[in-house]
Amino acid sequence: MTELDFELPDAAPSTDSGDDADDSVRIDVAALAEQLLGPWAATRHEARELAGHPELHKIEGLTHHEHRERVFGQLKYLVDHKAVHRAYPREHGGYEDHGANIAGFEELVAADPSLQIKAGVQWGLFGAAVLHLGTEEHHAKWLPGIMSLDIPGCFAMTEIGHGSDVASIATTATYDPKAEEFIIHTPFKAAWKDYIGNAAKDGLAAVVFAQLITKGVNHGVHAFFVPLRDAETHEFLPGVGGEDDGIKGGLNGIDNGRLHFDNVRVPRTNLLNRYGSVATDGTYSSPIASPGRRFFTMLGTLVQGRVSLDGAATVASKLALTVALRYAAERRQFNASSEVAEEVLLDYQRHQRRLLPRLATTYAMSFAHEQLLEKFDGVFSGRSDTDKDRQDLETLAAALKPLSTWNALDILQECREACGGSGFLIENRFASLRADLDVYATFEGDNNVLLQLVAKRLLNDYAKEFRTVSIGALAKFALGQATGVAYKTGLGAVAQFVRDSGRAQRAALALRDEDTQRFLLADRVQTMVAEVAQALHGANRLPQAEAAARFNAHQNELIEAARAHGELLQWEAFTEALAEIADPGTRKVLTWLRDLFGLSLVEKHLAWYLMNGRLSMQRGRTVGEYINRLLTKLRPHALDLVAAFGYGPEHLRASIATGEEAQRQAEAAAYFEAQRASGAAPRLEKHTKTSERKS
Amino acid sequence: MTELDFELPDAAPSTDSGDDADDSVRIDVAALAEQLLGPWAATRHEARELAGHPELHKIEGLTHHEHRERVFGQLKYLVDHKAVHRAYPREHGGYEDHGANIAGFEELVAADPSLQIKAGVQWGLFGAAVLHLGTEEHHAKWLPGIMSLDIPGCFAMTEIGHGSDVASIATTATYDPKAEEFIIHTPFKAAWKDYIGNAAKDGLAAVVFAQLITKGVNHGVHAFFVPLRDAETHEFLPGVGGEDDGIKGGLNGIDNGRLHFDNVRVPRTNLLNRYGSVATDGTYSSPIASPGRRFFTMLGTLVQGRVSLDGAATVASKLALTVALRYAAERRQFNASSEVAEEVLLDYQRHQRRLLPRLATTYAMSFAHEQLLEKFDGVFSGRSDTDKDRQDLETLAAALKPLSTWNALDILQECREACGGSGFLIENRFASLRADLDVYATFEGDNNVLLQLVAKRLLNDYAKEFRTVSIGALAKFALGQATGVAYKTGLGAVAQFVRDSGRAQRAALALRDEDTQRFLLADRVQTMVAEVAQALHGANRLPQAEAAARFNAHQNELIEAARAHGELLQWEAFTEALAEIADPGTRKVLTWLRDLFGLSLVEKHLAWYLMNGRLSMQRGRTVGEYINRLLTKLRPHALDLVAAFGYGPEHLRASIATGEEAQRQAEAAAYFEAQRASGAAPRLEKHTKTSERKS
Repeated sequence: MTELDFELPDAAPSTDSGDDADDSVRIDVAALAEQLLGPWAATRHEARELAGHPELHKIEGLTHHEHRERVFGQLKYLVDHKAVHRAYPREHGGYEDHGANIAGFEELVAADPSLQIKAGVQWGLFGAAVLHLGTEEHHAKWLPGIMSLDIPGCFAMTEIGHGSDVASIATTATYDPKAEEFIIHTPFKAAWKDYIGNAAKDGLAAVVFAQLITKGVNHGVHAFFVPLRDAETHEFLPGVGGEDDGIKGGLNGIDNGRLHFDNVRVPRTNLLNRYGSVATDGTYSSPIASPGRRFFTMLGTLVQGRVSLDGAATVASKLALTVALRYAAERRQFNASSEVAEEVLLDYQRHQRRLLPRLATTYAMSFAHEQLLEKFDGVFSGRSDTDKDRQDLETLAAALKPLSTWNALDILQECREACGGSGFLIENRFASLRADLDVYATFEGDNNVLLQLVAKRLLNDYAKEFRTVSIGALAKFALGQATGVAYKTGLGAVAQFVRDSGRAQRAALALRDEDTQRFLLADRVQTMVAEVAQALHGANRLPQAEAAARFNAHQNELIEAARAHGELLQWEAFTEALAEIADPGTRKVLTWLRDLFGLSLVEKHLAWYLMNGRLSMQRGRTVGEYINRLLTKLRPHALDLVAAFGYGPEHLRASIATGEEAQRQAEAAAYFEAQRASGAAPRLEKHTKTSERKS
Repeated sequence: MTELDFELPDAAPSTDSGDDADDSVRIDVAALAEQLLGPWAATRHEARELAGHPELHKIEGLTHHEHRERVFGQLKYLVDHKAVHRAYPREHGGYEDHGANIAGFEELVAADPSLQIKAGVQWGLFGAAVLHLGTEEHHAKWLPGIMSLDIPGCFAMTEIGHGSDVASIATTATYDPKAEEFIIHTPFKAAWKDYIGNAAKDGLAAVVFAQLITKGVNHGVHAFFVPLRDAETHEFLPGVGGEDDGIKGGLNGIDNGRLHFDNVRVPRTNLLNRYGSVATDGTYSSPIASPGRRFFTMLGTLVQGRVSLDGAATVASKLALTVALRYAAERRQFNASSEVAEEVLLDYQRHQRRLLPRLATTYAMSFAHEQLLEKFDGVFSGRSDTDKDRQDLETLAAALKPLSTWNALDILQECREACGGSGFLIENRFASLRADLDVYATFEGDNNVLLQLVAKRLLNDYAKEFRTVSIGALAKFALGQATGVAYKTGLGAVAQFVRDSGRAQRAALALRDEDTQRFLLADRVQTMVAEVAQALHGANRLPQAEAAARFNAHQNELIEAARAHGELLQWEAFTEALAEIADPGTRKVLTWLRDLFGLSLVEKHLAWYLMNGRLSMQRGRTVGEYINRLLTKLRPHALDLVAAFGYGPEHLRASIATGEEAQRQAEAAAYFEAQRASGAAPRLEKHTKTSERKS
């Protein structure tokens, strides 16, 4: 026992699959693929077929000017292929199918994210603003040109001075009753519209968001249809000006830019007046009395962008994992000339640790996204469109979009690194997709700001829940919180799962129990929210500055609580999807994958579970081991799990996912085999000296 | 207490600085700046001056062909400005100053990372191989042309089939005694050299690494000087071929490519024979008897690349944080038109949480890097060049390079997101730097592979340490480990710091204690290594496949142990730097910053500390609170801390770091002020209706 010499392999081949491997378990790839496609499977099939067309593929290495030209042409191609009108009214040639519209839109990311986002600017923001904020007259006047791309347009909301705070934009639209016109004006540079797609080059018109002022009263933010450029010369119209945002970190097929307005006059009727009108004499009226509620109603259409980014981030993650896992299943790193075949990368524990939990996360993102899409379709179709539905949709989108867009960046980067130098070559697409998806984390709602919105909703729910609870119960609850270890009333029944059992085996069993995972994830959300709520209790009766300071001291915890909420939603969606799987083998593997997702979350937040007495030290130590066992179980199914994503070579377009690596290895192996057979192989120096030892 | 209504601000302004803020504490920025410059301050000043020249700056939006042309021209500019010969022999016009060479090289990243890496290929890899692996004759023949750039060249080591496993490369150099020539040959595609800088376009020659075969014996990997292209026509010479790697995720100013050789003959004397020679008759000889040791000695020069990447990643992190923190100290997000000035982004807790721990990490990276550079200079100057010194240098570089290159990517991304849409514009440089630095994580040694090397060294150290320990002590140790909570012998004296004190205040005091932090970080490394060592005990007596499987089952823990070791080294370097600070105010602030670094590491690994009984639940809960207090203390010093990095506008070159944001705000504020003064400001609708309430 005194001799502990570590002569270890340079890296560690071979995995001990132990008792867990079950060779008889197989995934029904076709059925799983269909399930993953979700409720709008037919549309996704159509859109993927289209996304496979070479005409729509990103060409790397173009200048941003060339890339913009190409993407504008691709938008016309989409029009010609009837790919972008699914959400529009039937009378204008659309299908009024909002869910299908988003599902199809998301798949375009496989062709070129610039194409996806530029289409989103034209039909999901500019056109959708005319559709949702305008009235029949506006539809008749502008939708045909918008749909046909005769009127390329901008969604001019964000200003340089204020990104996420739309209510505070400084552009004004002042009504002049004599001329019956609105005067659009940006009074200073901070009020310039910025980061506006289609603004630098293509936009002939814009929906401009501005403070509506009439009769000396500011009625808040409203949307106006404002012509920008002459259709023939493409010169700015009088009073309109702008700048090119130039090259960006990605999405360079889109001509983002700045816009400013110097007392630009538009007819009174250019106000998109579904939620607020101005009569010829300047009298303001609205179907929604409260300015605050009116504002949020008008902005409600923005949720569509968040929903689609959640889906697009999921598509990109699927593409990247398909490529990286195929390569990992072929690539051998060490000892090329040895007679024993080396292990492939995917047999290494570390490599499994890097890729398989991210695969599990991508499944969770996918299932959660389909639920979000159904919710979205319910609201936008009017099928279930109550205030509560809209609020739930907003919260769900605000919770899921940050997680999936951040996850996509993390997944793309880990996949790129897992493929080494090959991963860095643009031909293998990780770096290209990552650059394009970077901004998904901060546009259509900055991720941190969105999570803060979710947190506020959670706090309000918490407050409502406890309105009906006696002071005694609340005090008892507070006491429990203060000691930091007590379980909340009502959750005690589940708590037994997470008490120390004293035996690792039983701990592992408990951790893979669905109810245990749910309890651990849900309890964490509730407790985190309750803790912040307690800390903020009474803050609303403090002077504003003090209340704000109190809030600020808990901002980080609050955002982390919202993130925990989003993770729980993803886990629930994954778990609900398990119930829909008919094939036992598929359900078994997917249950392991769900467990891997759940346990990875528990591992990520393990400090919290330990610190708050939800897991004992001993049980905490089993989490990592159990994850390692799940990796071993899942490893044989990795290729099937990515095959079920259903993307073909026309979507992946990565040379390392084509089998070329395996071919090269076969060629090398044949060479060495022939050399050995011929007896021509040189001996190794170390085999020629018998007296020498390793140094 | 039953009324818990959360009417909270949209975001949280104002920070409660509490008792901790001390307005009298000030940083001596100039002195701190000089300390950060390290032992080669003069060279860094020179190199920064040069990096500020517009001729060397990256121009965004060039095609990769244009970018390559530009960078090649910049290399000549560096030669003309005597910026790249610091490491070369005096007799050839160099200074034989290895530390200064790397210090100066690192600063070039501020101009353009492509320039930095292309210079590294030419003078740090190609030229350094001739210098360190060749002899006087080779120096005289080739160094002048290499130094003057008359011979642009490649370092042709990596092959498609094997990235990190250099010992297994398949290119052969077979000696032909009749012709007194080596025959360089790549027998199959997997043996092609790949990702080779200067290979696609500029390289006239290469140092090619190949298996040296003579008299039927393979003597392992050696380096050969191989002409590639005709100097006039730039066509490949007979038998040489190649491909362009094309566009990459970044560094597109470098012409990476593939090379293959079809029985290309070079003179016997083109073997760089410092560590191995072949006589005219084909007899092999070497000053190093062991092939294994010879191999590692030859590869030892590669450490220079790792050292310089560690430094370059630190420079990029400093640039990004300077820009992001300046913007955060100006930018106001909400309520533009309000009469009360909004808080700036940096006053938000979340924003502090995002940027300030990363600032602390960058300081740790910077101090650790200067220590690495001194170690490097000691070895390469021959001042302290024992086997142990070389091993220590290898291990230190292998531990620090992964951490700093990953940190740089994380810091660049967080800075980019913290600046929102502005951060995504290429003019603000985050996205550009991030794309270029991406590959730093996998080249010059893949980060995961490097950490595994560190782990093996730690395991061997551990084994040596315990060779002299009695079986009884080892058993006792093992028992302690098995229960998972016992402290190791010898560390018991420090353990008292981390036992639960029962009071949060005292816990916080203890956590900010230097010895406590050291104990927590060091104990974790030792324990993690010991645990794996125990698990692997006896593995070397198992059959190879089983031993490998055993190793693989612990690969992830092993790599995490190496990471923990690197973090400890960074923390120690930061702590040692504190002792050198003369100014009390500076030392106070830097001590807070070191505490933030240390406590952020403890928070990151908090689960481990709790699970292993090093921190009680109660004390664990104080870690986050204490970090929040440190953020509040450090916030007033954020701008000074980045000012001390010493980069000017010619290095930052980001419009958002120029004060333009504050100017825009001043313009907007003046507008609203004038409007209010004139009485022309419109009233808000909600102020016109007294009967209505918020909805």
